[in-house]
Amino acid sequence: MSVEPIRWQDNELQLLDQRKLPREVIWVRCRDAHEVAAAIRDMVVRGAPAIGVTAAFGIALAAMRGDDLRAAAEELRNARPTAVNLMWAVDRMMECSGRLQPADLLAEAQRMFAEDVEANRRIGRFGAELLGQQVTVLTHCNAGALATAGYGTALGVIRAAAESGKRVAVFADETRPYLQGARLTAWELQQDGIDVTLITDNMAGHFFQQGRFDAVIVGADRIAANGDAANKIGTYTVAVLAKAHGVPFYVAAPISTVDVATPNGAAIPIEERSAAEVTSIGGVAIAPEGVAVRHPAFDVTPAALITAIITDRGVLRPPYDESIGEAIRKALAD
Amino acid sequence: MSVEPIRWQDNELQLLDQRKLPREVIWVRCRDAHEVAAAIRDMVVRGAPAIGVTAAFGIALAAMRGDDLRAAAEELRNARPTAVNLMWAVDRMMECSGRLQPADLLAEAQRMFAEDVEANRRIGRFGAELLGQQVTVLTHCNAGALATAGYGTALGVIRAAAESGKRVAVFADETRPYLQGARLTAWELQQDGIDVTLITDNMAGHFFQQGRFDAVIVGADRIAANGDAANKIGTYTVAVLAKAHGVPFYVAAPISTVDVATPNGAAIPIEERSAAEVTSIGGVAIAPEGVAVRHPAFDVTPAALITAIITDRGVLRPPYDESIGEAIRKALAD
Repeated sequence: MSVEPIRWQDNELQLLDQRKLPREVIWVRCRDAHEVAAAIRDMVVRGAPAIGVTAAFGIALAAMRGDDLRAAAEELRNARPTAVNLMWAVDRMMECSGRLQPADLLAEAQRMFAEDVEANRRIGRFGAELLGQQVTVLTHCNAGALATAGYGTALGVIRAAAESGKRVAVFADETRPYLQGARLTAWELQQDGIDVTLITDNMAGHFFQQGRFDAVIVGADRIAANGDAANKIGTYTVAVLAKAHGVPFYVAAPISTVDVATPNGAAIPIEERSAAEVTSIGGVAIAPEGVAVRHPAFDVTPAALITAIITDRGVLRPPYDESIGEAIRKALAD
Repeated sequence: MSVEPIRWQDNELQLLDQRKLPREVIWVRCRDAHEVAAAIRDMVVRGAPAIGVTAAFGIALAAMRGDDLRAAAEELRNARPTAVNLMWAVDRMMECSGRLQPADLLAEAQRMFAEDVEANRRIGRFGAELLGQQVTVLTHCNAGALATAGYGTALGVIRAAAESGKRVAVFADETRPYLQGARLTAWELQQDGIDVTLITDNMAGHFFQQGRFDAVIVGADRIAANGDAANKIGTYTVAVLAKAHGVPFYVAAPISTVDVATPNGAAIPIEERSAAEVTSIGGVAIAPEGVAVRHPAFDVTPAALITAIITDRGVLRPPYDESIGEAIRKALAD
């Protein structure tokens, strides 16, 4: 694979610094769970599946050092509040920790890494079937290889469609304030030679109006039991636009992104991040000093605006409480 | 008034450099029509009413220097394609040029300046009546004092409401790529002590969903005979969101922004600006080299999404072909 944001090397976790891309390709080294939590909090690594796998390695590191696993788990869970994959990955590692040696815990983290890539490939195959032979897809933020252990969820669908011979063009919202679309999605698709056009977030409506898009595909940070999906701020706006223009709106995510303990979107905590990420870009101030700022990092797209949820367990359709419930039951039975 | 972007001083036109705000307050001096056209093209001055008044001074400067008026008019008209006020102002000056001496042409430009401020104060009074005693208004781009000879159109309504004792809070979309909201609207409202909160464009949907907005007020660069309105890129998206959430969407503009020769929005030329304005911010590259970019600078909001058009001739309601026609006939009769 051309792009992998997480690697285990020389007995340490190495993370591709996504704050620096695309200008610099730098690997940040994490030697204990505290450094892993800091990297998640500071967004060296981001994207729900990627931070889940990263946190799993954090628990393995703590075990290998003989550190307090409960404290490590607590710090990792608190690093970011919205993505449920983080909680899920830490819980799975903690469940294993009672019966596994440190080296086997590391093997478990590596298994989760491999499972995530495999899940994304399945998401890709299921999703590609939903697309025509020649399509233009709008995506928001980065639900790509960089947001996962590799291959990507939303961009996994794009990759799978391209690999199957379909002609896919992508429009990438730049995704302010953190610019994941401009910095990460555009770069990642360039690496794979996939046709990508960058637009600012507020241009999407204009191109919907012009009939430019055949589908929207985005990722998710947490999907509630009723199908409401939290994702990067701006996703809800894209979903409203898609509905208004009759364009299918797909969410692509592994089944582990579903949190059946969250009944609906209103119960998903929305992280509020710093004003500085809005008022300056690359260290350059773009707003007057002292201006009030709001910075919700995510928003919730109600199930009613989602055409289908593309998971590694197949394509789920409304009513989601039923289709999600059935997919979860099958996953647990396997 | 606290903020004025255009002044005539020492026999030259001086323009507040809106590319540098809010970090620096610098005046650019224009001594001939060529320099005026360059300032409009390079966005030293922007906003449909402001570039109209600026172009009028450009014709006056050409006359005072004895330059070829037709060539000057041609260059000024071509400086930017979307705003009709530019064409209207140049046409009005050229009509006068046959019978007026240069000093009288300058007086005519100064009259247009004063008329624009007065029109904005009337827009403000009409618009303020549409708002409740305590409201939160979303605005996009900068339709403020900086976009006009002074006082503003959309922000003129805000100012008039505040002056009349209403409690008005404003949310300002930052308005990528040029960041007029972050740089200009936030700064301008701070100067007047009006409550302003800055958000990125893609956050608007989230706050609509939360019921945060009582109204949307934006400006316009050209209004077609049927009420379709061209305005800064992203305005259409805000209008779709307002409709989906049952929030009134108002366009505030002088009647000179209406172009009866443009039957509908499809006939409005949309300026495509440079990729560099999208791929870098303040000189900092935010996207990988060589990425494809689209950059339409405006979009068209169809009349069906506009609750009312607030003009200096009163508040126009649908059906706009009738209400606009009547307002134009009255304006011509006066």
